Amino acid sequence: MSSPRDSSKRADRLVVLGGRDRPARPAGAVWLVGAGPGDPELLTIKALKALQRADVVVHDGLVSDEILDLAPQGGRRISVAKRKSRHSYAQGEINRMLVAFAQEGLNVVRLKGGDPFIFGRGGEELEACREAGVACHVVPGVTAALAAGASAGAPLTHRGSAQAVTFVTGHAADGEPNLDWESLAKANQTVVIYMGLSTAAAIAARLVQAGRSGSTPALIVVNASRADEHRVLTTLSDLGQAAEALSGPALLIVGEAMALANPLIPAKAGTQAASATNSTSEWAPTCVGVSGL
Amino acid sequence: MSSPRDSSKRADRLVVLGGRDRPARPAGAVWLVGAGPGDPELLTIKALKALQRADVVVHDGLVSDEILDLAPQGGRRISVAKRKSRHSYAQGEINRMLVAFAQEGLNVVRLKGGDPFIFGRGGEELEACREAGVACHVVPGVTAALAAGASAGAPLTHRGSAQAVTFVTGHAADGEPNLDWESLAKANQTVVIYMGLSTAAAIAARLVQAGRSGSTPALIVVNASRADEHRVLTTLSDLGQAAEALSGPALLIVGEAMALANPLIPAKAGTQAASATNSTSEWAPTCVGVSGL
Repeated sequence: MSSPRDSSKRADRLVVLGGRDRPARPAGAVWLVGAGPGDPELLTIKALKALQRADVVVHDGLVSDEILDLAPQGGRRISVAKRKSRHSYAQGEINRMLVAFAQEGLNVVRLKGGDPFIFGRGGEELEACREAGVACHVVPGVTAALAAGASAGAPLTHRGSAQAVTFVTGHAADGEPNLDWESLAKANQTVVIYMGLSTAAAIAARLVQAGRSGSTPALIVVNASRADEHRVLTTLSDLGQAAEALSGPALLIVGEAMALANPLIPAKAGTQAASATNSTSEWAPTCVGVSGL
Repeated sequence: MSSPRDSSKRADRLVVLGGRDRPARPAGAVWLVGAGPGDPELLTIKALKALQRADVVVHDGLVSDEILDLAPQGGRRISVAKRKSRHSYAQGEINRMLVAFAQEGLNVVRLKGGDPFIFGRGGEELEACREAGVACHVVPGVTAALAAGASAGAPLTHRGSAQAVTFVTGHAADGEPNLDWESLAKANQTVVIYMGLSTAAAIAARLVQAGRSGSTPALIVVNASRADEHRVLTTLSDLGQAAEALSGPALLIVGEAMALANPLIPAKAGTQAASATNSTSEWAPTCVGVSGL
């Protein structure tokens, strides 16, 4: 039998609390990890390492199996996916679950699509950990807006046409979000609306009403960075109608700089067209590209 | 001697133009790659792979040697760092350089701190490539704001206190930036000012003048995610004074949610304190964390 110190070697690397008089059971910790937009290659190396050390992974519905499979075999995986029809877990339940696992001495990875602190409710989970005295680390991720701009070839900020970029959410409990339409309607900025597909028509109407030109370029990106990414370039006036035909996790990006976006990828040509810009097909999960040098 | 086809094998993987009648010299391409905020572990796997295939790396001053060393030995490296006192390269010169290298058949990685499309002028480089008929791919990166929020433990969006987040730049040719202060002064949103250290006092004054409360929490993060990261939590009223003592690449983050930020890391305790939250010390450049499982 190895000594307690040896047997807890892997977990030891993560211990933040405790010192010389470390208890027999190492302290657990919660890692709020951004999984990025979908393409497993858009994970950061830090996120990959955190996943590889996870005893338990608590994840959103948007995180793909390809990414989840990077966690150790035999570790526990819990989906807390939220669906419109039912909430598998309320936020308070998720918070309590994270704390409880960490208090059992486990390395808990809370894996979120994109970045944990951009519409990921990571702040609430962090607060729950702090209140419980549980160590909590945050690993940032590539938020979907950055991936959408990259694959469309449309910059979120651009000299002369986008001096600022704002991220808002189009989702609200009662249907239409309560946003500062007047500020968002100003020209020379990019507005990215997360989760706005179902409220696209209402959002576009509000922006036009508040003074943003109906001819402003508007880009819809569904499944940004994934093999089935789908883009539609339209205008603010036509945004609602364009959104009607679409489904899936989507961003609406409104702003003059979106005029630079690549032509749309038609849904049926998706895989072929996407593989030219996304290198998902080159993904090697075991060792990252070192042998290829 | 190997055949022309064999000798160009590595570059072939990146060829997008061309087909069966491929010319003897493969087409080059430009990759606009986000290097992330500084910690090499916050590179994406896709960025790492792009770097590993680079024939030439054209990089900003903010990109560390630790990251540059991931590119092949013997490849060409060109720094186009901009300094206040002198501009080594004008943007037009950088654009022409990227196009010229690609037209020579090289894989050109244009490596930028953060994300190429958030205040990185990547859009201008992409346009130059398009005009010249050069293939251009964009690899998004973790923009500094996300890393700063993560390491400070302060969410950029948060229920009840930050329903939106806006990124602007505090840098302007003539000193003070020309921003929409009234919009930025509204409560319930986070405002991130890139490159705002030298104009912090003027920015804070404008925001207060436009109606944002002087007691709004304001966080300054210097060298986000690096071993020498330095944070100061203050208020909008005191932002200018707090910024005076600091130097280096910095973000100003203003908003109610910054109240959640961790206590400051004092400059002199920097390395020790930072190593608890940043895992830079675990960085293994040759093979990513697989053997550690």
